[in-house]
Amino acid sequence: MYNIALFGAGRIGQVHAVNIANHPQSSLYSVIDPYQKGAQALATQYGAKIQTTEEAMADPDVHAVLIASATDTHADLIEQAALAKKTIFCEKPIHLDISRVQQCMTVVKENNVPLLVGFNRRYDPQFRLIRERLSAGAIGKAESLVITSRDPSPPPAEYIKVSGGMFRDMTIHDFDMARFIIGEDPVSIYAQGSNLVDPAIGQAGDIDTAFIVMKFPSGAMATITNSRRSGYGYDQRLELHGEKGLLKADNIHENTVELWSEESGCVGAKPEHFFLERYAQAYRSEWDHFIDVLAGHCEPECSGYDGEFALKIADCALESLKTGQEVTL
Amino acid sequence: MYNIALFGAGRIGQVHAVNIANHPQSSLYSVIDPYQKGAQALATQYGAKIQTTEEAMADPDVHAVLIASATDTHADLIEQAALAKKTIFCEKPIHLDISRVQQCMTVVKENNVPLLVGFNRRYDPQFRLIRERLSAGAIGKAESLVITSRDPSPPPAEYIKVSGGMFRDMTIHDFDMARFIIGEDPVSIYAQGSNLVDPAIGQAGDIDTAFIVMKFPSGAMATITNSRRSGYGYDQRLELHGEKGLLKADNIHENTVELWSEESGCVGAKPEHFFLERYAQAYRSEWDHFIDVLAGHCEPECSGYDGEFALKIADCALESLKTGQEVTL
Amino acid sequence: MYNIALFGAGRIGQVHAVNIANHPQSSLYSVIDPYQKGAQALATQYGAKIQTTEEAMADPDVHAVLIASATDTHADLIEQAALAKKTIFCEKPIHLDISRVQQCMTVVKENNVPLLVGFNRRYDPQFRLIRERLSAGAIGKAESLVITSRDPSPPPAEYIKVSGGMFRDMTIHDFDMARFIIGEDPVSIYAQGSNLVDPAIGQAGDIDTAFIVMKFPSGAMATITNSRRSGYGYDQRLELHGEKGLLKADNIHENTVELWSEESGCVGAKPEHFFLERYAQAYRSEWDHFIDVLAGHCEPECSGYDGEFALKIADCALESLKTGQEVTL
Amino acid sequence: MYNIALFGAGRIGQVHAVNIANHPQSSLYSVIDPYQKGAQALATQYGAKIQTTEEAMADPDVHAVLIASATDTHADLIEQAALAKKTIFCEKPIHLDISRVQQCMTVVKENNVPLLVGFNRRYDPQFRLIRERLSAGAIGKAESLVITSRDPSPPPAEYIKVSGGMFRDMTIHDFDMARFIIGEDPVSIYAQGSNLVDPAIGQAGDIDTAFIVMKFPSGAMATITNSRRSGYGYDQRLELHGEKGLLKADNIHENTVELWSEESGCVGAKPEHFFLERYAQAYRSEWDHFIDVLAGHCEPECSGYDGEFALKIADCALESLKTGQEVTL
Repeated sequence: MYNIALFGAGRIGQVHAVNIANHPQSSLYSVIDPYQKGAQALATQYGAKIQTTEEAMADPDVHAVLIASATDTHADLIEQAALAKKTIFCEKPIHLDISRVQQCMTVVKENNVPLLVGFNRRYDPQFRLIRERLSAGAIGKAESLVITSRDPSPPPAEYIKVSGGMFRDMTIHDFDMARFIIGEDPVSIYAQGSNLVDPAIGQAGDIDTAFIVMKFPSGAMATITNSRRSGYGYDQRLELHGEKGLLKADNIHENTVELWSEESGCVGAKPEHFFLERYAQAYRSEWDHFIDVLAGHCEPECSGYDGEFALKIADCALESLKTGQEVTL
Repeated sequence: MYNIALFGAGRIGQVHAVNIANHPQSSLYSVIDPYQKGAQALATQYGAKIQTTEEAMADPDVHAVLIASATDTHADLIEQAALAKKTIFCEKPIHLDISRVQQCMTVVKENNVPLLVGFNRRYDPQFRLIRERLSAGAIGKAESLVITSRDPSPPPAEYIKVSGGMFRDMTIHDFDMARFIIGEDPVSIYAQGSNLVDPAIGQAGDIDTAFIVMKFPSGAMATITNSRRSGYGYDQRLELHGEKGLLKADNIHENTVELWSEESGCVGAKPEHFFLERYAQAYRSEWDHFIDVLAGHCEPECSGYDGEFALKIADCALESLKTGQEVTL
Repeated sequence: MYNIALFGAGRIGQVHAVNIANHPQSSLYSVIDPYQKGAQALATQYGAKIQTTEEAMADPDVHAVLIASATDTHADLIEQAALAKKTIFCEKPIHLDISRVQQCMTVVKENNVPLLVGFNRRYDPQFRLIRERLSAGAIGKAESLVITSRDPSPPPAEYIKVSGGMFRDMTIHDFDMARFIIGEDPVSIYAQGSNLVDPAIGQAGDIDTAFIVMKFPSGAMATITNSRRSGYGYDQRLELHGEKGLLKADNIHENTVELWSEESGCVGAKPEHFFLERYAQAYRSEWDHFIDVLAGHCEPECSGYDGEFALKIADCALESLKTGQEVTL
Repeated sequence: MYNIALFGAGRIGQVHAVNIANHPQSSLYSVIDPYQKGAQALATQYGAKIQTTEEAMADPDVHAVLIASATDTHADLIEQAALAKKTIFCEKPIHLDISRVQQCMTVVKENNVPLLVGFNRRYDPQFRLIRERLSAGAIGKAESLVITSRDPSPPPAEYIKVSGGMFRDMTIHDFDMARFIIGEDPVSIYAQGSNLVDPAIGQAGDIDTAFIVMKFPSGAMATITNSRRSGYGYDQRLELHGEKGLLKADNIHENTVELWSEESGCVGAKPEHFFLERYAQAYRSEWDHFIDVLAGHCEPECSGYDGEFALKIADCALESLKTGQEVTL
């Protein structure tokens, strides 16, 4: 049984707490959060302790840390955990500044601790199946990848300001997905964007709608379609075209019930509302993988390098958006 | 926290054990099973005790019993639990002999304990949504109900012999579903069947393929399509036609990935393989309901009366199959 | 080029007129209809003559007759055409009285003329493909056939009175379809029905909603779901389950456009409105087949025997509806 | 009745010949093609004359010309027809060189004859419905347009050489579609491409796989996904995201039949094979529109300006592909 110290008792922390508690090989050992009330509620629910960061890092009974705290604390906590020789699960991103990410990676490397970066979508069974079927030769060589990713509704403008912008906060998942599916690092990127959803986002210096084109060494290409507001739920689709055909992963809808009538036509349910619903299974599978890492059965599939590379792509996308030129990575 | 004594550590018992353990208001207190090894394994996994039937019934710390043991033990255990004033969750069927069911119901009634009969499909979110939308007037009055229910592959012929036959074992779920959706007790039934899947089933005196037509007091009708072998997974669909349109619940497929290619056309995943996968959510929701019953928030939605009525329909279907006449209930 | 005399310039006659005129091997030679204005309009549109029945039958330039006139004239016209040695295409039904049908068949036989009875659905490419794939072994032996057939809205009660009732008028297509797909003549039939759509239909002595179960010599079974009013268009689906899997033909919808939105969910188009739209291709393919018959390349696929048998099933269904017993054919 | 002179008796000419002949207000008057055998076959089939270009242009009985001849003859024939005051239907493109197109437009304008350029996809009922629903406010303002367009298999490399390249030959339809749907002229374009399908295409100096991003004055954006080889039929999809939701047009598949089985999963039919099948209705609707133009009921919806603008976008896309920069129009 692995004892887990959980940093951050917010929305994502709570998702992980359930999975930690329900997994037969892990238990929620302690919760660390400056917001005491949230920490206490979560700790009570799962019979866990309240600890400070220092206590958790120093506690020999803590086998691993799960970092789901505020973004700007990730790098510091990773370094402290690395020094304390804890196995680390860190929510994306490691940091918004790539030089800080690189610094942090050095500490991780020096201390030789496993670090899993939480790009949860890699563990979605649909997307993973596409990756597996590509590897198994179902469509021959990959040629064109089309990623659709739209949030149901935009975050408040205050969040935009601390998020690092749409590319570093939202599209970063799609950048990682493109690398995960194609299995190569892109060589160039072009980004085009607009502020169409909420003027406050534009005033905060960001966009909310984007099309991105990436090219890979093999000649394969990927496009990403993003919007901060779908109006109909969380739109998460992926389509991979190869030399022998197409692999498509469609949305998962809220239910399978349809109403057919004179007035309305044939009406089905919307896609699952947002990531908590859509990626519930992905979060569980991600945790299963981390338990395997803890048990020494494998290396982290999604490493610090992956976290760093996704951020690097985001930075280049931003540069392309500003210059109107494709940027070479 | 409600302590649950679980009778039966087999396949269904294990499904319930997970849900009991994961629910914040219940815990698996004890396991009772004549097969000691199975009981022990399950008890160990969830930190539960091993008890005998007598110990469990006499134990004041046991708040409720979940009966998932062999079919022929259900009625006896229900009666013992009723006398011991335990709240009861019993897997269907109560008994294969309707007079024994009625006897059992009398004991339950005299002891005034809540009894929930486990027609799990009533808790499937898709089918429940159809019931709710019908009640909300989405299609006006119900007119025609079409239930498709096909198992992936037939059980062994030995099971057929102790199962009470297809109508009492398999179709009984569909009989209950028809009553649940239409909200009326049928007035007549006609059944036609064949032995097409496995000759051993015919030699055991049973059929494996059936069409059934039921009529309800309002003039609404239902048809049930059954097969013991689909060849492509667990086919569980429902379609309700009313005066203003149609409500349809489709299968849930294993995933949303499609392969489009020259040789194969457009290929999607099969329906979920069998009931453990297809009704995983239904089992969880059913347990949520039982916790509500235990907490005194509501009466059991699916009572002994429902269990008895479904069996009565099965008996009439069998009579119709033999006589070629529709049978009045 | 085959010259066709068309009896009946109404809705169905007009459908055939287009197909006759557009086919490179046939031309609309003459139109015969007691309603002169309709006959004249159609004749003018296609550059055809107006003839009387006697003129058409006596005219050596008429190679074939297409009978799309009122139902009660079909048998007489068939007999006259047979005596005049014309090749005959007759819309279903031949007659509502089976003894008159048999009489008529005798005349056809004595005169040795080809007679094609217009069960148009046999020529629908979807249903035909199911028949072909069954023959090619795609699902092994046929076991269960499920036919869904719902009209968009009920006909006026006056039509009901002359139609011979739902089974002889509407379900007769489904009876024929069951024989066409299974490839056997049924041995028994059970019918259950209600008057739910329009009280005037009940007052005219008919039903408007029905479930039917048929059994075939091989043990295969079929069920038919009928309603005179769908509320959402013409619902024409077919599903055939066999020992190795399922073949399904879904509705053809008005278009492929979907609207996904917050308020409405995921909305697609309704099924094609009614038979003129849904079976437009079937009517064309049926005419192609008749041209092949005229050219002596093949026998009529859908003969007088098929017309007679479908009516016989309808009569038995009516008897079952009245007696509550399955009727042996 | 309008007499039509058809230039070009090839594949596209034959498509138009059927529609001209079947339309109640037009007839195929003459066929002009340097390949005499093809011209004769088509003329015989529809009872048309054989003419030379000069004869057709000088013939006062010719009301309109349909130009479906080789691409490099389009501009010359348009000019001759304009001088002869014929109404003109010309297949795209007018010419591969934009200055020649502009010259040609001047002649058309001076002679004040209607010119319809055959971007057939504008008449596809699915895509047109999306345009209409956008106009009707179904999704508010347009934000992101996603066009998928993949041919079933690549043309021979010789064709590539005379085609003007993928952007001017194939993508030009998508450029026009983007303008048709969004209802604005784009302000910038970026193109990325690869030669993945056939090395011979690369040796001919062209690409066969492309992603394109366009931006419009309103901030709306469009992306186009192209491949010369799908492997599974003609992939023609369109998805328009707006402030209130999504409008999607899916492929039309060869039929609605599905096979569900153990070995194969759930298998549906491929998309319609290529443009002759997929856009059969679009060609008919396009001809209906041209008859309306001939009758003076409306102006050509798709004019020389549209033909010129689509070519201009193609030229800019080519420049972007070469420079790696987005190009301002």
